[in-house]
Amino acid sequence: MGKTYDQINIGDMAFMEKTVGESDVYLFAGITGDFNPAHINHEATKDTKFGGRIAHGILSAGFVSAVLGMQLPGPGTIYLSQQLVFKGPVKIGDTIKAVAEVVEKLEKGRIRLKTTCFNQDGMQVLDGEALVIAPRA
Amino acid sequence: MGKTYDQINIGDMAFMEKTVGESDVYLFAGITGDFNPAHINHEATKDTKFGGRIAHGILSAGFVSAVLGMQLPGPGTIYLSQQLVFKGPVKIGDTIKAVAEVVEKLEKGRIRLKTTCFNQDGMQVLDGEALVIAPRA
Amino acid sequence: MGKTYDQINIGDMAFMEKTVGESDVYLFAGITGDFNPAHINHEATKDTKFGGRIAHGILSAGFVSAVLGMQLPGPGTIYLSQQLVFKGPVKIGDTIKAVAEVVEKLEKGRIRLKTTCFNQDGMQVLDGEALVIAPRA
Amino acid sequence: MGKTYDQINIGDMAFMEKTVGESDVYLFAGITGDFNPAHINHEATKDTKFGGRIAHGILSAGFVSAVLGMQLPGPGTIYLSQQLVFKGPVKIGDTIKAVAEVVEKLEKGRIRLKTTCFNQDGMQVLDGEALVIAPRA
Repeated sequence: MGKTYDQINIGDMAFMEKTVGESDVYLFAGITGDFNPAHINHEATKDTKFGGRIAHGILSAGFVSAVLGMQLPGPGTIYLSQQLVFKGPVKIGDTIKAVAEVVEKLEKGRIRLKTTCFNQDGMQVLDGEALVIAPRA
Repeated sequence: MGKTYDQINIGDMAFMEKTVGESDVYLFAGITGDFNPAHINHEATKDTKFGGRIAHGILSAGFVSAVLGMQLPGPGTIYLSQQLVFKGPVKIGDTIKAVAEVVEKLEKGRIRLKTTCFNQDGMQVLDGEALVIAPRA
Repeated sequence: MGKTYDQINIGDMAFMEKTVGESDVYLFAGITGDFNPAHINHEATKDTKFGGRIAHGILSAGFVSAVLGMQLPGPGTIYLSQQLVFKGPVKIGDTIKAVAEVVEKLEKGRIRLKTTCFNQDGMQVLDGEALVIAPRA
Repeated sequence: MGKTYDQINIGDMAFMEKTVGESDVYLFAGITGDFNPAHINHEATKDTKFGGRIAHGILSAGFVSAVLGMQLPGPGTIYLSQQLVFKGPVKIGDTIKAVAEVVEKLEKGRIRLKTTCFNQDGMQVLDGEALVIAPRA
């Protein structure tokens, strides 16, 4: 089980890192049906400012969700809401660090976390925040 | 290419539907590393109120993203932000309808859409809204 | 980073659990090319004593490897050898618990672990042991 | 069906070869949950002696299993045990040859095989042996 409300403190952080592979983008496209050429067409994207295909923005949100569901608070968490602000592209081959940081403890067991993703150059690609209910003791 | 700002009107709608397979949930877990037992452990979940494994909430957001990126506005869209409110569980085998509806046209080519998901019983599982820039002519 | 030699004690245990989905078996078949009918042919297996398709034995070894590489000792581990004894079938839908337990601390940073897998009925499906070098401090 | 005990002779060999793709490693990580940075984080591994991500050792065992289950003895084989000694890294892009060679015929239909994997430079990456029961006539 994950951490309970009482075990969580403001400022607590957790993260995960993964290099985004072509297979991640292709499987995500296959699961969702989002075949936007930005994600799966090299010829259509090679001469854009990004120089090729980019990952779906929601893929980074998936990494955020993994941090919340696996670590902070962890298994047993109830996911209430998630705000996502897409700040920059994730290119195939980028290594993304998804970070969750507790910013507020609210009534009824609710926890507010700042949720961000950065690439290997320290550029922020995702901003936002999550509201969850921590697991019960 | 998708629809331009001028081609889009308030009230325009688009949707997609998919039955969520076990493979969707398992691939999503595999891409993100979210092995929360809620998603991949039948024994740990069969006696919960949901009666088994449920999909990752962000998977439904992926369907929303597919509607935006493929249909409304469609290819060429710049995804600025997404608010997600998780209203109910998506069980393996549920058929999810993801809907996007234009609710506001803003300056600088920006479009605001209401984004929702419903299951086969008409129960809302996701609420929220997206802000995008429509493709240029 | 994972646990160092000094942080590991005889009797330490770690585990993971996952319900083996059809997609796990099919992807494993697709990665390895092991299209043995036992794994991917329902018609050829439905009347056998297992009553259908079973997972590749090595898939359970993958769960063992995940416990070693993610938890005990964890990232930084050097995997020297693995003995596997296949004790029983893993059917699609079974929930497998992979367990690693430290049984000996050897010279040169090496750790010996008993590695076992059980199904949801407590039946042992895999036995064996692993030899690893724990991460350096 | 595969070869029966009587059709198998000491010295019989079979093999398969596959170039290990990033997708193989990523799917294997996704099936097992083994997100050890050694396998899925380019930034964390690019300056190691391996110069990047390496495949899970058990993936090579999967190739061995495919040779046993598909060719020698082939479908109908009962896999009793497998010893694995990890001799060197498999990098993404390496082409692995998995070889099984019959070394002993035992009582009760059992066959012992030497099981090895080599990369494209002839470097041995896996050693070990398997014990199987050949299919019945």
